[in-house]
Amino acid sequence: MATQTQKKVTSKMNVRFGEHLHALRKAKELSLREMAELCSLDNSNISKIEHGKFDIQLSTIVELAKGLGVHPRELLDYDFE
Amino acid sequence: MATQTQKKVTSKMNVRFGEHLHALRKAKELSLREMAELCSLDNSNISKIEHGKFDIQLSTIVELAKGLGVHPRELLDYDFE
Repeated sequence: MATQTQKKVTSKMNVRFGEHLHALRKAKELSLREMAELCSLDNSNISKIEHGKFDIQLSTIVELAKGLGVHPRELLDYDFE
Repeated sequence: MATQTQKKVTSKMNVRFGEHLHALRKAKELSLREMAELCSLDNSNISKIEHGKFDIQLSTIVELAKGLGVHPRELLDYDFE
């Protein structure tokens, strides 16, 4: 069971990932709807991920990468500190 | 609900990730026990991940990176095709 501190660390991490995802999508000039059409995620879930609501799974990272047309490692290419 | 094909794709992806994780750990000359001591995962879970048993979450990817002393993007730096 995750402790309170672990939950806080995870949610900060999810928000940071969401910010990076949002920046990548904007750089590609894709709307949520356009990105959703390029992968198997719907636009409301992509929006929730951008707002740090989920501790997403590897399979979702791979789908997000497909939607953006980038290699999955790009989704983790930011400062984690 | 994931379809049968999505489940097959996810499990192949998890096995591939596990192989990459195993190679990274070997390159660092770390045993499962030594790696477990450097992060908040236990050695049996790391072993299961290496055998593709889980569709792991972002927080686990970050812990694995801590255990290996690498940036999280390294965990996804392999050929996904």
